[in-house]
Amino acid sequence: MHQKTGLVVSAHSADFVWRAGGAIAAHARQGYAVTVVCLSFGERGESAKLWKKSGMTLETVKADRRREAENAAKALGVHDILFYDLGDYPIQVTPEAFDRLVDLYREIRPEFMLTHSRQDPYNFDHPMATEFAQHARVIAQAHGHKPSTPVLGAPPVYLFEPHQPEQCNWKPNFLLDITDVWEKKLAAIKCMEGQEHLWEYYTRVALQRGVQASRNSDYKITYGEAYEAVFPHVTGTLGHGALA
Amino acid sequence: MHQKTGLVVSAHSADFVWRAGGAIAAHARQGYAVTVVCLSFGERGESAKLWKKSGMTLETVKADRRREAENAAKALGVHDILFYDLGDYPIQVTPEAFDRLVDLYREIRPEFMLTHSRQDPYNFDHPMATEFAQHARVIAQAHGHKPSTPVLGAPPVYLFEPHQPEQCNWKPNFLLDITDVWEKKLAAIKCMEGQEHLWEYYTRVALQRGVQASRNSDYKITYGEAYEAVFPHVTGTLGHGALA
Amino acid sequence: MHQKTGLVVSAHSADFVWRAGGAIAAHARQGYAVTVVCLSFGERGESAKLWKKSGMTLETVKADRRREAENAAKALGVHDILFYDLGDYPIQVTPEAFDRLVDLYREIRPEFMLTHSRQDPYNFDHPMATEFAQHARVIAQAHGHKPSTPVLGAPPVYLFEPHQPEQCNWKPNFLLDITDVWEKKLAAIKCMEGQEHLWEYYTRVALQRGVQASRNSDYKITYGEAYEAVFPHVTGTLGHGALA
Amino acid sequence: MHQKTGLVVSAHSADFVWRAGGAIAAHARQGYAVTVVCLSFGERGESAKLWKKSGMTLETVKADRRREAENAAKALGVHDILFYDLGDYPIQVTPEAFDRLVDLYREIRPEFMLTHSRQDPYNFDHPMATEFAQHARVIAQAHGHKPSTPVLGAPPVYLFEPHQPEQCNWKPNFLLDITDVWEKKLAAIKCMEGQEHLWEYYTRVALQRGVQASRNSDYKITYGEAYEAVFPHVTGTLGHGALA
Amino acid sequence: MHQKTGLVVSAHSADFVWRAGGAIAAHARQGYAVTVVCLSFGERGESAKLWKKSGMTLETVKADRRREAENAAKALGVHDILFYDLGDYPIQVTPEAFDRLVDLYREIRPEFMLTHSRQDPYNFDHPMATEFAQHARVIAQAHGHKPSTPVLGAPPVYLFEPHQPEQCNWKPNFLLDITDVWEKKLAAIKCMEGQEHLWEYYTRVALQRGVQASRNSDYKITYGEAYEAVFPHVTGTLGHGALA
Amino acid sequence: MHQKTGLVVSAHSADFVWRAGGAIAAHARQGYAVTVVCLSFGERGESAKLWKKSGMTLETVKADRRREAENAAKALGVHDILFYDLGDYPIQVTPEAFDRLVDLYREIRPEFMLTHSRQDPYNFDHPMATEFAQHARVIAQAHGHKPSTPVLGAPPVYLFEPHQPEQCNWKPNFLLDITDVWEKKLAAIKCMEGQEHLWEYYTRVALQRGVQASRNSDYKITYGEAYEAVFPHVTGTLGHGALA
Repeated sequence: MHQKTGLVVSAHSADFVWRAGGAIAAHARQGYAVTVVCLSFGERGESAKLWKKSGMTLETVKADRRREAENAAKALGVHDILFYDLGDYPIQVTPEAFDRLVDLYREIRPEFMLTHSRQDPYNFDHPMATEFAQHARVIAQAHGHKPSTPVLGAPPVYLFEPHQPEQCNWKPNFLLDITDVWEKKLAAIKCMEGQEHLWEYYTRVALQRGVQASRNSDYKITYGEAYEAVFPHVTGTLGHGALA
Repeated sequence: MHQKTGLVVSAHSADFVWRAGGAIAAHARQGYAVTVVCLSFGERGESAKLWKKSGMTLETVKADRRREAENAAKALGVHDILFYDLGDYPIQVTPEAFDRLVDLYREIRPEFMLTHSRQDPYNFDHPMATEFAQHARVIAQAHGHKPSTPVLGAPPVYLFEPHQPEQCNWKPNFLLDITDVWEKKLAAIKCMEGQEHLWEYYTRVALQRGVQASRNSDYKITYGEAYEAVFPHVTGTLGHGALA
Repeated sequence: MHQKTGLVVSAHSADFVWRAGGAIAAHARQGYAVTVVCLSFGERGESAKLWKKSGMTLETVKADRRREAENAAKALGVHDILFYDLGDYPIQVTPEAFDRLVDLYREIRPEFMLTHSRQDPYNFDHPMATEFAQHARVIAQAHGHKPSTPVLGAPPVYLFEPHQPEQCNWKPNFLLDITDVWEKKLAAIKCMEGQEHLWEYYTRVALQRGVQASRNSDYKITYGEAYEAVFPHVTGTLGHGALA
Repeated sequence: MHQKTGLVVSAHSADFVWRAGGAIAAHARQGYAVTVVCLSFGERGESAKLWKKSGMTLETVKADRRREAENAAKALGVHDILFYDLGDYPIQVTPEAFDRLVDLYREIRPEFMLTHSRQDPYNFDHPMATEFAQHARVIAQAHGHKPSTPVLGAPPVYLFEPHQPEQCNWKPNFLLDITDVWEKKLAAIKCMEGQEHLWEYYTRVALQRGVQASRNSDYKITYGEAYEAVFPHVTGTLGHGALA
Repeated sequence: MHQKTGLVVSAHSADFVWRAGGAIAAHARQGYAVTVVCLSFGERGESAKLWKKSGMTLETVKADRRREAENAAKALGVHDILFYDLGDYPIQVTPEAFDRLVDLYREIRPEFMLTHSRQDPYNFDHPMATEFAQHARVIAQAHGHKPSTPVLGAPPVYLFEPHQPEQCNWKPNFLLDITDVWEKKLAAIKCMEGQEHLWEYYTRVALQRGVQASRNSDYKITYGEAYEAVFPHVTGTLGHGALA
Repeated sequence: MHQKTGLVVSAHSADFVWRAGGAIAAHARQGYAVTVVCLSFGERGESAKLWKKSGMTLETVKADRRREAENAAKALGVHDILFYDLGDYPIQVTPEAFDRLVDLYREIRPEFMLTHSRQDPYNFDHPMATEFAQHARVIAQAHGHKPSTPVLGAPPVYLFEPHQPEQCNWKPNFLLDITDVWEKKLAAIKCMEGQEHLWEYYTRVALQRGVQASRNSDYKITYGEAYEAVFPHVTGTLGHGALA
C-alpha cells in the first residue's frame, strides 16, 4: 500500500516546530511521511540569543540553527527536512527555489500542505512563504508545466497559527488534537535552544487550543493546534471529526 | 449500538429540501435518524403559485404546503418532521417554541445541526431562524437549564446555502458529496409543486457545487451541497475528508 | 404616463434632509413623486438646542420639529411626508407601524428606497430604521401577505451616509450628482433651525462627495451625495452612469 | 478634586473577573471608583459545578454566585457592584433595567465603559449585554431624555476578551498592562469557586497578552488584558501609551 | 459622432469568453468597439486537453489557443484582440508590456475596463492580471507620464466572475442582462474546444445570474453576467438600471 | 534628556503635508524631532499643474516639487527631510533605498512612524510605500541584521488618511487634535502651489475630523487628523486620551 505524505513549508527553520510540530508528529504516528521545507534558517530575524554570543558569523548562526532544526525534526518523526537557504529578513525567493518546490509537490504528492498565515504585520517573510508555497502548488497542478510529469491533485492547505493571531486576521476553522503526541512536540520545542523564551509561550498556546477543541466537540482534548483551511473541506459526512 | 442523529432547522417548509435535501438523504443512508423542524409552512412568502389559484385561504395553503413537505421528507428518508406553525413573513418566534426546540436538542442529541445563513437581505425569516436555532442550542448546553435533564454536548452547526450566496456574506467551507443520493433529492424537490420555477435552479446549484467539490479534492463528484461551518472542526487528521 | 415614485425612510425628522435631501430634490426635479416617512420627530436625541429653551415639553419640541421637517420637505419638492411618531431614543416600532409601511410600499410602488446604514455605534435608532424599512419591503413582496393587493417588485435600496461613515462600516458605491439641486438642499438644511451646528458640516460633506464624484468619472460635479446600494444593480450597460 | 470613575457591564456575575479584573484593579489603584453591573448571576449557564451538588435550587445557586462575585469585587477594589438579576440563559432585559442603567451612566459619568464583544456564537447573553450597555450609553447622551439631568459625555467603550476571540471576530487594539495588579486579579479569580477549571485558562490568557504587550512596545510587561476599542481614540500625541 | 470603446484585460486567452463574453457582445451590439488584451495564451494552465494529444509543444498549444480565441472574439463581435504572450503559469509581466497597456488605455480611452477578481487562491495569474490592468490605468491618468499624450479619464472598472466566487471574496454588485446576446456568447464558448468540460458550467452560471438579475429588478432576464465594480458608480439617478 | 523623535514615510513629496502635517507640527511643538522621508517628488502623478506650463522637463518639475516640499517642511517644523528620488508613477523601490531606510530607523529610533493606507485603488504608490516602510521597520528590529548596531524597538505605526477613505478600506481608530497647530498646517498646505485645488479639500477634511474628535470625546476640538493604528496600543490606562 502507498504511504501517505504531508508537506510543511516553513519560512524559518523553527516555525514548523512552534506552529505545526503537533500536526507533524500526529501524522507521522499515523504513518504519513512528512517532508518539511525551511526556506531560511532564520539566521537574522529569529536568532537574537545566538547573536549575543561573541564571535558569531552568519555561517555559524546558520549552522547552529540547522542543527537545532534537524534535532527537532528527528524528535517529531519528520521523514525529510530540506533547507532552501534563501537568506533571511528578508527571505529572497528565486525562480530556482520555486521550481524546486513545484517539483517536490509532484514528487511527494502530499495529502495536505501546511504553511503560514496570509498576513502578518510583525513578519514579512511569513506571508511571502505562504504566497510562495501556494503558488507553487497551483503550478504543480498545471498540465502544461513539464507535461511529462503527472500533475498534482488538490491537497488541502492549512495555515498554521501566527504569533499574534488576531493581528494577522487569521481565524482558525480546524482544531487538531495533538494530546497523544504532545511529548514529542515539547521535545522538539526544547531543541530550539536559541529561543527558550518561546517554550512556555507555545506550551500555553497548545493548552488553550486544547481547551477550545474540547469546547467545540464532545471529546476530552488537552493539547491542540489550530489551523485555518484555505479551501472548502470536501467530505461525505457532517458529523464530528474523527480523532486519530 | 446507539443510532446517530441529525437536526435540521428550516424556516419555511421547503427550505430543508432545496438547501439540505442532499445532506439529509446522505446521512439517512448512513443510518442517521434526521429530524426536521419547520418553523413555518411558508404560507405567505413562498407560495405565490398557490395563491394564484382561486378560493385559497391561509389554511388551505398551509395544508398544501404541509402535504408537500411531508412527501419531500419521505423521499429523503427523514426520521421525523415537526411543524412549529409560527406564522410566516414574518415568522413570530415564541418562548414556547424556543423551549420546545431546547427540549428537542436534549432529546435527540444530534451529531450536527443544519440551518440558514446569518444574513439574508432577501428574507428576514432566514437569519431569524438561525438565531433561534443557535440560541436554543446554547441554552440546551447549560447545566442550570432544567437541571434534571442531561445537557447537550457541542454538535457542529452548518449553515446551508442561501438563494444568492454572495449577497448574504455566506462563504462555504464544507462541500458535501451528494452524488449517490441525488435522485432522492430530486424526487423531494419535485414534491414542491408550488415552486416549480426553482427545480432547475437548485439542480444547477447541485451541479456547480459538485464541480467545485471535485476541483477541491481528488474525488470525482457530480452533485454537491455547500455549507458554512460556524465552529472550528475538531479533528485528528488533516488529510482529505472521507467520502461516505 | 405613470409618474415615477421614490420612498425615503428616515429615523428622525431631520435625517432625510442631511442625508438624502439632494436625492429627493434631484428626483423631484426629474418628475418623481417622493414620499418621506419619518419614524420619529427626533424629539429626544436630536433637539439639544430646543431643550435649552425654557418651558419646553415633549409636545412643543415635537411640534417644532414637525414644522421644521415640513418646511424642509417643501423646499426639496417632497410629494408627501408622513410622521409615524414612534417615540425617540429609542424609537419603538409597532406591528401597526410595520403594517402601515408595508401598505405604503404597495400603494406607491417606489422605484427606489433610501434609508440608513446597517450599523451605527452612535445611534441605535438608525440601524433599527433600516431593519424596519427593509423588512417591510420584503413582506410587501410576499404573495401571501394580503393576497388581494398586488405585490411589490424589487425596488433598489440605497443606504445614505451616516455621520461618521467609517465607524459605521458603511462604504459608498454610488455617488449621486446633486449640483443642480444644491440650492434646494441648502434651503432645506436651513429649515433645521435647532441643529445649526450641522449646516456647515453637511455642506462640507456635499463638497467632498462632489470632488470624489468628479474623481470617479469624467464629469465635473461640485456637490454630491453618497450611497451604499444593498442589492446588485441590474443593468444593460457598463459605461459611465448617466447624469440627469 | 473630582474622583474619576469607570463602569463595567458584565453579563454574568463572573465575567467582570475573567475579562476585566485587571483593568478594574489597575484603575482602582490609580484612584478610580469603578462600578460593576452584573446583569445576571449566571445561575444557569455558568454554574455547572454548583448544580452538581445535591439540593441546589435557583435561589441557592444565585446566592452562592452573588457571594463569590462580591468577594471578587472586594479583591479587585471595586467601588460598587450592582446585581440586576435579569435571569440567565437567556438574560431577559427589561425597560426598567434599561432605564436604571441610563440613570447610572448619568450619575457616575464614567471615564470609560467596559463590556462584552459584539459577537459570540458560544454565548447569546454576551452580545445582548453589549447591545444593552451601548444603547443605554447613547440614550444617556440625549438632551431630550429626562431633560432636567445633565447629559452624559462620550466615554470610550472597550470590549473585553471573549473565551474564543477569533470565533467572535473580536480584534484587540488596546493592550493594558496589569502586571502590578496581577495578584489582585488572581485573588479575585480564585473567588470563583464554581469555575475552578477556568483559573489556569485565564492565567494563561493574561500571560499571553503580557508577552504581546511587550512585543508591541518597548516595555517589559508580564501580565496583560486585551480590549477592542469601539470608538476612535482621541488624543494629542502618537507616541507610546503611558504605563500607569 | 465618436464611437464608444471598452477594454477587457484577460489573463489567459479563454477568460474573456467565460467571464465577459456577454458584456463584450452586448456592448458590441450597442456600438462599442471592444478591445481584448490576452496576457497569456493559457498554454500551461488551461490546456489540459491539448496536452493529452501526442506531439504537442508549447508553440503548437499556443497556436491552437490563439486560433480558438480569435474565433471566439469574432463570434462576440470584438473590435480588436491583442496577445501579449507573457508566458503562463505564471504569467511574467514585463515593463514593456506594462508600457504597452498604458499606451493602449490612452489610445482607445475606454468607457469601461473589465478584468479579474482581486483574489483567487486557485489561480495566481488572475489577481496578477488585475493588479497589472488597474495599475496601468492609474499610470495612464498621470499628467507627468508621457506629458505630450492626453491623459486618461476615469473609466469604471468591473471585476468579472471567478470560477469559485465565494472563495475569491468576490461579491457582485452589478448584474448585466445578456439575454439578447446569449447565442453569441454560447457560440464563443464553443470555440474553446480544449475546455469542453466548462461549456455547461458557464451556461449554468449565466442562467443562475439571469435568475438573480430578475430577482433584483422588475425585469424578466434569462441570462446574466455578474460583476464587482471597483469604484463608486457616479450617476444622476437612483432608479432601476436601464436595460439595453 | 534625550529628544524624542518621529518618522514619516511619504510616497510623494506632498503627501506628508496633506495627510500628516498636523501630526508633524503638533509633535514638533511638543519637542519631537520629526524626520520626513519622501520616496518620490511626485513628478509624474501629482504635478498636473506644473506640466501645463511650457518647457517643463522631469528635472524642472522635480526641482519645483522639492522646493515646495522643503518650504512646507520648514512651515511644519520638520527636523529633517530626505528625498530618496525613486521615480514616480510608479515609484521603483531599490535594495539600496530599503537598506537606507532600515539604517535610518536604527539611527533615529522614532517614537512613532506614519505612512500610507494599506490599500488604495486610486494610487499604487501609496500601498507600496506602506509595505516598504513597514517591512524596513521589521528588518530594523532583527538582531541578525547588521549585528553591531542596536536593534530598533517597536514604534507604533499609524496610517494616515487616504484621499477617499472608504474606498481604501481604511478605518481611523485614532483622532489627533491639531487645532493648536492648524495655522502651521495651513501654511504648509499653501506651499503646495502646484495643487491649489486640494487646499480647500484638505481644510474640509481637517474640519470634519475635528468635529468627529469632539464627538468622540469630551473635548472641544476644531481641527483634527485621523489615523489607523496598525498595532495594538499598549497602555496603562483606559481613560480619555490626553491632549497635548
